[in-house]
Amino acid sequence: MTNYKVILQYDGSRYDGWQKQGNTDNTIQGKLESILEKLAGQPVEVHGSGRTDAGVHALGQAANFHLEDGRTAKEVMDYLNRYLPEDIAVTEAKTVPERFHSRLNAVSKTYLYRIETGDKKMVFEQKYIYGLGREMDLGKMRQAAKYLVGEHDFKSFCANKRMKKSTVRRLDSIEITREGSRVYLLFTGNGFLHHMVRIMTGTLIEVGLSERSPESVEELLGAKDRQASGYTAPAEGLFLKNVEY
Amino acid sequence: MTNYKVILQYDGSRYDGWQKQGNTDNTIQGKLESILEKLAGQPVEVHGSGRTDAGVHALGQAANFHLEDGRTAKEVMDYLNRYLPEDIAVTEAKTVPERFHSRLNAVSKTYLYRIETGDKKMVFEQKYIYGLGREMDLGKMRQAAKYLVGEHDFKSFCANKRMKKSTVRRLDSIEITREGSRVYLLFTGNGFLHHMVRIMTGTLIEVGLSERSPESVEELLGAKDRQASGYTAPAEGLFLKNVEY
Repeated sequence: MTNYKVILQYDGSRYDGWQKQGNTDNTIQGKLESILEKLAGQPVEVHGSGRTDAGVHALGQAANFHLEDGRTAKEVMDYLNRYLPEDIAVTEAKTVPERFHSRLNAVSKTYLYRIETGDKKMVFEQKYIYGLGREMDLGKMRQAAKYLVGEHDFKSFCANKRMKKSTVRRLDSIEITREGSRVYLLFTGNGFLHHMVRIMTGTLIEVGLSERSPESVEELLGAKDRQASGYTAPAEGLFLKNVEY
Repeated sequence: MTNYKVILQYDGSRYDGWQKQGNTDNTIQGKLESILEKLAGQPVEVHGSGRTDAGVHALGQAANFHLEDGRTAKEVMDYLNRYLPEDIAVTEAKTVPERFHSRLNAVSKTYLYRIETGDKKMVFEQKYIYGLGREMDLGKMRQAAKYLVGEHDFKSFCANKRMKKSTVRRLDSIEITREGSRVYLLFTGNGFLHHMVRIMTGTLIEVGLSERSPESVEELLGAKDRQASGYTAPAEGLFLKNVEY
């Protein structure tokens, strides 16, 4: 068998997220597996680097799968791009060692969250940015972000209440930048809990709007309680930017 | 009565163009007029600077209309933005002299045409760019464009075969630029015939692909025959950028 690693771009607007679901499947993983099943003549399991929620986009999701020997990575990529819908694309493909696994071998991931602070309607980009429509204090947000960087128990930022595994993760950096009326948040870390990026973003927005203090973020991290943190920022502003191996 | 001038942005993908049609109206002008009729309590006629075809976008279409006195331009703009669909926005509004007319007073217009020369799928921008997927020689295109600039009879670039009025127009400039795998064509002139920008673009693309010579453009301009010029480039790449008064 040959192991193929692919990099994927997708507009998540029309999909129920990455992970395959039961009968009424409308997921990115499901689309890939059904096309690969036609190519291979048998079911193919696609391993993603991790899930993305319904409505979340990807600039560089990573995935891998095994096929019988005999096809170049380019052939597999071209086949996928021919049958995938217009809003999902394979941008790179290569063969990797038999034991490579997109999720288990990932070293870190980077997510981008895009916010529009102006109050104008976004005619061309409404599906790809969160229209907050209010100005934020980036100094305060950067101050608050410092408490989140490092290795912590991120239970306060996890939407899954019955999470039985460890909620400890290492966040390498949060970069907050402005470009005109746009604010971009870039999160890099070794792993992210369910809704973790969107809850961190909602919490940092509340700090930026002076609805909570930067210092309160240190306290709520210690609380280990989802109720202590901010709201879940909407899916449309979020992009899985890339996965590092 | 007060005369209001508005600047509009729209994603033309879902619409049958600018100009209002009969019963099954799905046009930009139609949307504006039906909202203004509710505001005014009587029919309101909206004058655009000119038509845009089905699927063509606008970054800065200009239009004007008259309402009974008593509303500020800001109030009218906010009302329109509240009821217009997400893919149409009023970005500016002001009151203008009674006799101002968006079409009759326009001095020049600028159109932008966007082309992707790479062969990658465009996950996020497919509706806003023409995916040509082939490289072009911009030097040849610029050479060909020189024959088009100036005052000419553009009959060879007019889709309307039964055009009875003059087909003479003045084209002030054509700028052709590259940004990575993207090529942008910017046309400024005092007026454009039906499909004129898209036929000029299709013809210049044929020159860029070496399917016709730059010099052939001078000949076909003299032919005054639509059959002599190139194909009509698709609507999705075209934006009405702005209208100068």
